[in-house]
Amino acid sequence: MAEDFDILVVGAGVLGLSCAYHLKVNNPTKKILVVERLADAAQGNTARSAAMVRNMFTSRDNLMLAESSINFYRNIQGSGVDLGMKQTGYLWVMSERQLSLNEPYMQKMEKNGIQIERFDLSRLKQALPALNTEFAASDEDSRLMELENVGGAIFGPKCGRLDPEKLARFFLAEFLEKGGKVVYGTEAKRIIVESSKPLGVEGEPFVWQEAKIAGVVLQGEINGEVRAETTVIASGVWNNELLEPIGIDGHVKGKKRQMFTISARNDSRLAALMHNKSFNQLDALPFVILPKSACFIKAVDEEARFWVACDDDLNQPYVNVPEPDIENYKADPRYYEENVYRILKAYLPDFEGHSRPDQMWAGLYSYNTLDSIPFVFLENGLIAAGGGSGSGIMKADAMGRIVDCAYRQGEDGEAELYGGTGYKIKRMGFKSRAVEREEWVI
Amino acid sequence: MAEDFDILVVGAGVLGLSCAYHLKVNNPTKKILVVERLADAAQGNTARSAAMVRNMFTSRDNLMLAESSINFYRNIQGSGVDLGMKQTGYLWVMSERQLSLNEPYMQKMEKNGIQIERFDLSRLKQALPALNTEFAASDEDSRLMELENVGGAIFGPKCGRLDPEKLARFFLAEFLEKGGKVVYGTEAKRIIVESSKPLGVEGEPFVWQEAKIAGVVLQGEINGEVRAETTVIASGVWNNELLEPIGIDGHVKGKKRQMFTISARNDSRLAALMHNKSFNQLDALPFVILPKSACFIKAVDEEARFWVACDDDLNQPYVNVPEPDIENYKADPRYYEENVYRILKAYLPDFEGHSRPDQMWAGLYSYNTLDSIPFVFLENGLIAAGGGSGSGIMKADAMGRIVDCAYRQGEDGEAELYGGTGYKIKRMGFKSRAVEREEWVI
Repeated sequence: MAEDFDILVVGAGVLGLSCAYHLKVNNPTKKILVVERLADAAQGNTARSAAMVRNMFTSRDNLMLAESSINFYRNIQGSGVDLGMKQTGYLWVMSERQLSLNEPYMQKMEKNGIQIERFDLSRLKQALPALNTEFAASDEDSRLMELENVGGAIFGPKCGRLDPEKLARFFLAEFLEKGGKVVYGTEAKRIIVESSKPLGVEGEPFVWQEAKIAGVVLQGEINGEVRAETTVIASGVWNNELLEPIGIDGHVKGKKRQMFTISARNDSRLAALMHNKSFNQLDALPFVILPKSACFIKAVDEEARFWVACDDDLNQPYVNVPEPDIENYKADPRYYEENVYRILKAYLPDFEGHSRPDQMWAGLYSYNTLDSIPFVFLENGLIAAGGGSGSGIMKADAMGRIVDCAYRQGEDGEAELYGGTGYKIKRMGFKSRAVEREEWVI
Repeated sequence: MAEDFDILVVGAGVLGLSCAYHLKVNNPTKKILVVERLADAAQGNTARSAAMVRNMFTSRDNLMLAESSINFYRNIQGSGVDLGMKQTGYLWVMSERQLSLNEPYMQKMEKNGIQIERFDLSRLKQALPALNTEFAASDEDSRLMELENVGGAIFGPKCGRLDPEKLARFFLAEFLEKGGKVVYGTEAKRIIVESSKPLGVEGEPFVWQEAKIAGVVLQGEINGEVRAETTVIASGVWNNELLEPIGIDGHVKGKKRQMFTISARNDSRLAALMHNKSFNQLDALPFVILPKSACFIKAVDEEARFWVACDDDLNQPYVNVPEPDIENYKADPRYYEENVYRILKAYLPDFEGHSRPDQMWAGLYSYNTLDSIPFVFLENGLIAAGGGSGSGIMKADAMGRIVDCAYRQGEDGEAELYGGTGYKIKRMGFKSRAVEREEWVI
């Protein structure tokens, strides 16, 4: 017979652990258990992330969630906990067409207090001489690929990177220190739905009874029913696996994203590209987004390699209930060669010759296909959170605070994000969803 | 080598056939093919519907879609085509609590021009003497089931029923008559995605190419690639099956609904209940919705039986990609006995003794889990429609007009619904969805 808990959190990724941390901080006497299928924390999609953070969004919701979370992370790191945060900045390289298309969004961001800098072409060329800004008329590849000449760039100095595993371990350590409990290697097999006033009859809950979520059946280090007053589903891309069988839409679909790394060790040009004095105090190349397919380059100087990837919405399948083992989703070196590499070398010819990645991996974005903004919703005895849609880690602190507030105050509550901004729980639900759509999708 | 078409419609349910009909009417020279997996038209969930129509919605969108469609159906039937329409009315029996909860919605409906009548308790008792309106304090069953005493009713005289198969066959006959083509026993195996400017290289479309939907691969009576300028996905609850593999969310999840029938043949009380002079000119019991679990009773006089069912949102699983054979979803007589029957006999004691249904079947509602209002969205070369959420048949005409308009005018178009009301395509998409949520869910 397993122990009962006040709160049971399913998933020890960065979201689940942020939820557990904030729940424990604000409800210190409550018994909280985090359940994780894998053998350790943050080993699913948290570990597979591009691990970047930015405050550049047009949606007020995205901005509030990301900016408050990033400020919290910065504060934690400032207090001496290494979260691997580096404020390298984001450099969005754009064509003339893209620049003018995006100018209204830039203005909206500035109005919202987001610091951005516009680089015109000559300043950009000076700051990043390795960038190829103009394709010769005779360049057949760029013509076939419909690559646009570079018109300039937008720089977001407050953006940068962090280490999601370190962040998750911070939440975890604090949660454990405060008396929280975690069990690994333990799968939530199904959610227990029962009548709020059970009659002890087979077949309950009947449709004429009020049903509530009463916990989860576990298998692994703990086996059997674990009952909880509140069950928090924060299993990311696997939300549907538990929620659909009880008639609740998990509101996420997975989409594979592949990451490739290129070593700069034996290539003096790439080694030089890694360091750049024009954008930040760190002597680091900022996170660069190219004008085609959102192809990006992340310079990781401590590894002496670049992480590169690109965007491929259409034709990359959605997965409703992914396989339990995320390792089954593989990156394909041909995908790199035919897609990423061709864009990369066109705009940054220093990558020429690096047609094979030295490392690669795949992860699944957990998309909220409606508006790509995360959600938190309540059912009787249950709180579900997710839908990071590729930017969940940089919003995880705010999401944890919202889930905790949903627990304490219910649907009508208003969470206090880090820094003091209020955020109404209802904005994030689906019954009266009121989030602002993100316009700045390049 | 299969023939090419201008438009290919996947699904010969009532929605697909309405789309095909309106597309053919407005684009008479276009070659249109409807593809259906089953051996005949309207044999999937269309045939399993409760087959009721109503104009009682608070959402302006629901109202426009349903009312214009019902008016169209009425007009068709008026012109001599039997669609099995009968204006029996809907009688929503409610407790005092429900009546006052719903009064604001009643007022909104009246403001929107929807005809409703309020029955107070004494008028209701007189009009429907078979109804048990008050439970004795000693009645343990009603106490356990938390059944509320009846406080009155809301009557919608413009509501009623129709025969969805006849409706589908009307669309089909007109479509065929105008030169459209249908193929049965033929499965759409996958959607063809290709580059809009193919290079003839393996691996296309690459991420740097613009991708478009170019048709469907078929298996059955027609085999192989069938190419089309536009592919319309109207496969109801099976939308995800084709759309997810190409990275598009089908935005539907199935949920089983079970229907049970009770014969009135050898029961004089039930035979009497079937006829009622208080609500309509047809001497027919209106469609009655009881105060618990939306348990409903549909009197089908020509069959001398009642169709009965109830609502069970939580704990009835969502199905993302249902099995191809809808017959695999079975109704369970125990579900009737333990759930429907108990509510039924409590409010309508004439059903006492009918604890076994004489017929039963199950179907899947195709829910748009976001707001339960249908959608139409476009991708390059594709139009997807669906999300009827249990009221798709009564909106099928409007949906067909919207799909046709999306084909002719694209995302920025405005469809003309039957009767002349304009309806903007964008309201129904997901990029800038602007539908009004339905509040009147009892």
